[in-house]
Amino acid sequence: MAWRYALTIEPVASDDARTDFGDTFSVIDPVAPALSVGELSTQRGDGVFESIGVIDGHAQEVSAHLDRLARSAQLCDLPVPHEGQWRQAIAAAAAACDPGESVIKLILSRGVEHGPAPTAWVTVASATDFADARTRGIRVVTLDRGFDSAAAARAPWLLLGAKTLSYAVNMAAIREAKRRGADDALFVSSDGVVLEAPTASVILRIDGVFVTPAPTGLILHGTTQLSAFQWLASRGFDTEYRDVAAAELQRADAAWLVSSVRLAAPITAIDAMPLTNDVELTAALNAYLLSPRD
Amino acid sequence: MAWRYALTIEPVASDDARTDFGDTFSVIDPVAPALSVGELSTQRGDGVFESIGVIDGHAQEVSAHLDRLARSAQLCDLPVPHEGQWRQAIAAAAAACDPGESVIKLILSRGVEHGPAPTAWVTVASATDFADARTRGIRVVTLDRGFDSAAAARAPWLLLGAKTLSYAVNMAAIREAKRRGADDALFVSSDGVVLEAPTASVILRIDGVFVTPAPTGLILHGTTQLSAFQWLASRGFDTEYRDVAAAELQRADAAWLVSSVRLAAPITAIDAMPLTNDVELTAALNAYLLSPRD
Repeated sequence: MAWRYALTIEPVASDDARTDFGDTFSVIDPVAPALSVGELSTQRGDGVFESIGVIDGHAQEVSAHLDRLARSAQLCDLPVPHEGQWRQAIAAAAAACDPGESVIKLILSRGVEHGPAPTAWVTVASATDFADARTRGIRVVTLDRGFDSAAAARAPWLLLGAKTLSYAVNMAAIREAKRRGADDALFVSSDGVVLEAPTASVILRIDGVFVTPAPTGLILHGTTQLSAFQWLASRGFDTEYRDVAAAELQRADAAWLVSSVRLAAPITAIDAMPLTNDVELTAALNAYLLSPRD
Repeated sequence: MAWRYALTIEPVASDDARTDFGDTFSVIDPVAPALSVGELSTQRGDGVFESIGVIDGHAQEVSAHLDRLARSAQLCDLPVPHEGQWRQAIAAAAAACDPGESVIKLILSRGVEHGPAPTAWVTVASATDFADARTRGIRVVTLDRGFDSAAAARAPWLLLGAKTLSYAVNMAAIREAKRRGADDALFVSSDGVVLEAPTASVILRIDGVFVTPAPTGLILHGTTQLSAFQWLASRGFDTEYRDVAAAELQRADAAWLVSSVRLAAPITAIDAMPLTNDVELTAALNAYLLSPRD
């Protein structure tokens, strides 16, 4: 992975009538100092983000990512992002991408402590090569996320449906999974409900139906999961959003973690339980996810 | 609040035999760009921190803060901080403080993504004036922290005993408390055990005994709470670490939130329940907390 490009943004009000926001952008050196130590993103993980996959300069699922960025900002009491401004920033970033796969990150921070306004920036990096994960698959272990499945409804300040910068627990869960000899984690609520992975959504095939946990505020609504369900439906497969009990994992014959950059990674084992790697279906799904889409 | 000073640190191995680490420090402009957009502190809230109170250039409770920084680093699989290096950095920061009250922050980040090493820095800012909170007190509301009291023991990847940079939920809880007309929040576990405030420890006076939740990994061990208990014990008061059920809050006749910069803030109400503001005791406690100590 290498940093390719970065752009800082002065966020404008969501109802700003301009159509060109070029004078609110500053292209910066992505490896040079750019943020002050007073940044609340750094001090408090206080901000929201999105990671967008880019294929040969085409940013994928931009609308779904911007919708989620707006939802995250609302949950965090941050100003509503101006869709046109962020679209223009994404276009500038996509134009700076090399051929092949890249990742654009959008970051909206609460800004400098006691500062006047939120800060925002967009970065471009070349993507890690995930060919192995996409074909040979990944092993996952289930890890307790600590909270129960009713937590989001009764305690919105837990920000469970927001993609915040406070990802220390997500990163610790991946380290724990690796310590256990796996590649990734699958979070389960304390009352045994399947949630999501630290940086991905889960799709399970149970009795021939592709199932994913309903995004009811407890988990993020995965943009790649949305795309995968559209593709599966278009191919005549049954898809379903519903609560999935951890005990039901035993009934899955195949499963995937899906995310914007790694795309669809077939799960070959959950804890000690092996799963089928449906090589053909996964290859077709990843071919679709690698095609230019919005 | 104003930024006064900042110092970046190249962390050395914890067993480095040097006694002078001056050449690992770089004094920087605290409001100028200093961190790259690739910083994992910013992207993932992935790092640990401490906030140290400074009185007339004297940094308080340095050993307790460095102990906790080391514990946090260990829980997050970060390299053990070199105590001597951090002490020297704190001394340099303290020397840059104005008379009166300041705050030194220590930050140890996992570093730049895919970068070679952790990054670290120390900042100095003048402290907010908390005279009102210390004398007239604060109103708090209890908020559910989402997890149960057994979560830390069974799921160490939740990092509950580590002071990480992932504080978005802590900040959201304070905003929620303010929306409810209070000044601060008091977290309670989903199974009704009193925990801590988003940026402070709680001390309750119940039947004449000063009680605080035992720091068993579920909460941070408050450095100011430690100092307050030492002072209370030296004055002949009974102190006790134990589990406190939320229902027991009704039995408290006085309570405080204690933290390194605001110091002891008497709680005048928990939810709808008024509490005594023991003005004399609080003044004596804050006088002690404002005296030079380590």
